[in-house]
Amino acid sequence: MLNHQASLDLMFAALADASRRSMVERLGRGSASVKELAAPLSMSLPAVMQHLRVLESSGLVSSAKTGRVRTCRINPAALRTAEDWIAVRRADLSAQLDRLGTYLENS
Amino acid sequence: MLNHQASLDLMFAALADASRRSMVERLGRGSASVKELAAPLSMSLPAVMQHLRVLESSGLVSSAKTGRVRTCRINPAALRTAEDWIAVRRADLSAQLDRLGTYLENS
Repeated sequence: MLNHQASLDLMFAALADASRRSMVERLGRGSASVKELAAPLSMSLPAVMQHLRVLESSGLVSSAKTGRVRTCRINPAALRTAEDWIAVRRADLSAQLDRLGTYLENS
Repeated sequence: MLNHQASLDLMFAALADASRRSMVERLGRGSASVKELAAPLSMSLPAVMQHLRVLESSGLVSSAKTGRVRTCRINPAALRTAEDWIAVRRADLSAQLDRLGTYLENS
């Protein structure tokens, strides 16, 4: 449970940056090299590598090097963990609204 | 668009903390006073207020004071914004898998 909380901490922190989100958006459409990830971003390759490290530490992204090319991809299971946390809150909110509706109907 | 990115920055950063997530979890089940939010957390009331301010700045939570009691609730639209961002990535990943499936079937 502690690990789960720590994972969520790292994932949400990784997503709290527009450049890192744009890297995840790109990877959602297919795996990409670091160079391809960097192309639309106006920042140095070391800066992109730094963001990549944050994404990798969070588990959201993994990468593997073949020859000189490092290919990055999303880890779908990690993304689902973050999505699930929010989805449960939304389900709770819907249940709240349902209870309110029932209350108003019966009052 | 810039505002949208800044909002996502603040919301994901707000969710990158287990105490703040537990406050959002509690509010998912119904509005609550600051005292009620603080009850399950082993921290001082000022610390809880500080977390509440982060949640309010992100737009995820709003609060109103009546007499001496400050009542907090989730802003469902803000939660949906964060959820939608992740959902689009998940949809992109599914489309990727579908394309891979089609490719494998036809090869």
